Amino acid sequence: MKTFNIAILGATGMVGREMLKVLAMQDLPIGSLKAFASPKNAGISLPFGEGKVVVEALERDSFKGVDLVLGAVNADLARKYAPAIAQSGAIFIDNSSAFRLKQDVPLVIPQINSEDAFHHRGIIANPNCSTIIALTAVAALNRISPIRSMVVSTYQAVSGAGAGGLSELNRQMHDYAFGKPLRASVFAHPIAANVIAQIGSDCGNGYTSEEMKMQNEARKILHAPDLNISCTCVRVPVPRCHSISVMLVTERRIDVSEARAALSSAPGCRVIDDLDRNLCPMPIHASDQDLVLVGRIRADLTNANGLCLWCCADQLRKGAATNAVQIAALLAPTL
Amino acid sequence: MKTFNIAILGATGMVGREMLKVLAMQDLPIGSLKAFASPKNAGISLPFGEGKVVVEALERDSFKGVDLVLGAVNADLARKYAPAIAQSGAIFIDNSSAFRLKQDVPLVIPQINSEDAFHHRGIIANPNCSTIIALTAVAALNRISPIRSMVVSTYQAVSGAGAGGLSELNRQMHDYAFGKPLRASVFAHPIAANVIAQIGSDCGNGYTSEEMKMQNEARKILHAPDLNISCTCVRVPVPRCHSISVMLVTERRIDVSEARAALSSAPGCRVIDDLDRNLCPMPIHASDQDLVLVGRIRADLTNANGLCLWCCADQLRKGAATNAVQIAALLAPTL
Repeated sequence: MKTFNIAILGATGMVGREMLKVLAMQDLPIGSLKAFASPKNAGISLPFGEGKVVVEALERDSFKGVDLVLGAVNADLARKYAPAIAQSGAIFIDNSSAFRLKQDVPLVIPQINSEDAFHHRGIIANPNCSTIIALTAVAALNRISPIRSMVVSTYQAVSGAGAGGLSELNRQMHDYAFGKPLRASVFAHPIAANVIAQIGSDCGNGYTSEEMKMQNEARKILHAPDLNISCTCVRVPVPRCHSISVMLVTERRIDVSEARAALSSAPGCRVIDDLDRNLCPMPIHASDQDLVLVGRIRADLTNANGLCLWCCADQLRKGAATNAVQIAALLAPTL
Repeated sequence: MKTFNIAILGATGMVGREMLKVLAMQDLPIGSLKAFASPKNAGISLPFGEGKVVVEALERDSFKGVDLVLGAVNADLARKYAPAIAQSGAIFIDNSSAFRLKQDVPLVIPQINSEDAFHHRGIIANPNCSTIIALTAVAALNRISPIRSMVVSTYQAVSGAGAGGLSELNRQMHDYAFGKPLRASVFAHPIAANVIAQIGSDCGNGYTSEEMKMQNEARKILHAPDLNISCTCVRVPVPRCHSISVMLVTERRIDVSEARAALSSAPGCRVIDDLDRNLCPMPIHASDQDLVLVGRIRADLTNANGLCLWCCADQLRKGAATNAVQIAALLAPTL
């Protein structure tokens, strides 16, 4: 079988490490694997399957011979390295927001719009974590009848802000347990024992950049330019896994049993929905796995064509690393 | 000035203690104050203003001479003691869910429907905590144009489940800080480092009892029998103060500046809304005070007549004790 060479850009970050973990679990014909990070992290060994990979700093010709680069760096760094990746001939699957809304860049959730991935011109973008989680669930309903609008409230884990966010929560939970004052540095306010209803910056319409991603990215992924989404993004004191409360309105009415059947057989989803047994999707059950857990499926009381549901997934896995690796797996036969 | 005699039923619980605190801050002409609790707590001294009050167990004639009873017990106990209170001639302001939807019992938020309080027949009900918090905010908009529907997601503090919920979170945060397993007893699952999208039991339509309170109680308080509310109630690892994400649709369009002006001058509310300065309503700022903090006021993107907002308040204060004491203050001149 023909092999391909892969590199991870930003391998020492939380998403980069998950990419290594998920890559090792896939049965992909990988020839060589390179792990790139900033010079200060060069030489670090990272686990990869049963073995290890040693982190390298980027050099002028680092991408030479690489077929596929998985990007786990921020938007500025993604923009900085994109030309060198393009020049090497490698395909760049980028997890940052840098290229998501560019017209010639496919924005792909493989369970939804895998065909888009093949129309790339060197870059394929991985959607925002909350967008991936909500859409992987609701796409099953969109296939029955197009979604017209959604009202969404998120419950986002601190590791969505990287390792710094996670260590800040852990430190604050320790300080809280000992009655010490909580000092904030990664977030604008203490996050332990608190919730913060602002993620990202002002977009000018009262919504934050994080909130507008849901509408803008969903329109592109679902090929639904008129889809409207009102989103409220909220940081909660949870280490890992985003939870999302969704109300959606479809063109024709979908009844609850039809919705539950569709979600139960939807790729990438698992339904957990039993009030009598206190079972609903929760961060503690969604961590370290690749599925979007879906529950609380019920008729909306405000709109005859509305449905409500609750989903939860590991935002570092399906919300980032897993989705990128699934895009890589789509492309593998073409490399 | 004519004085009146007041009693607190369930004085040693979290809400009962807050009732004592809030009562002491009001300038009410209180003649005598009695604090009742279960026999095991009789003899305990509770702070009341600069002084103290000694907890008594209930006797056959405990309510004799009492003009007003503030109830801070559960629905079963409220039902049990209501006849004795009625027989004594005292008015019962009950914080439980026992009587809220009874036709001859006013359900009152003084900032919204104070006039209803005067049509009581011995019992006045205090609404559910989340209902009070959301409605105190949105009533300002309902006065401009009637609210037709709301989509609500809550972020509810553990102390909404009483002192046991609070001590469970505190213990679990300590155990989390030390890497110990988290044991759950008050809640069905660990709540530290987690969120639980189920509060209350199944109502048969996919909604929980806690979720249906928002629609049922709002209809009664706003005198809006056709108001529809889809609510998702979620427990979050926050010790105190409920936060609520609200999308509401009004009969006529209210623009954002009009909404902000109305909320800024609404009784019982304070607007905190500045993305550029990272200011929004948060539990750590809402604790131990009586106002509902309102922010994230913006146009809904899914409905031209829709508005989104975020509110946060101390559910033990305005969501329970303060609202009950405010009802008592309304009635005081009539006693």
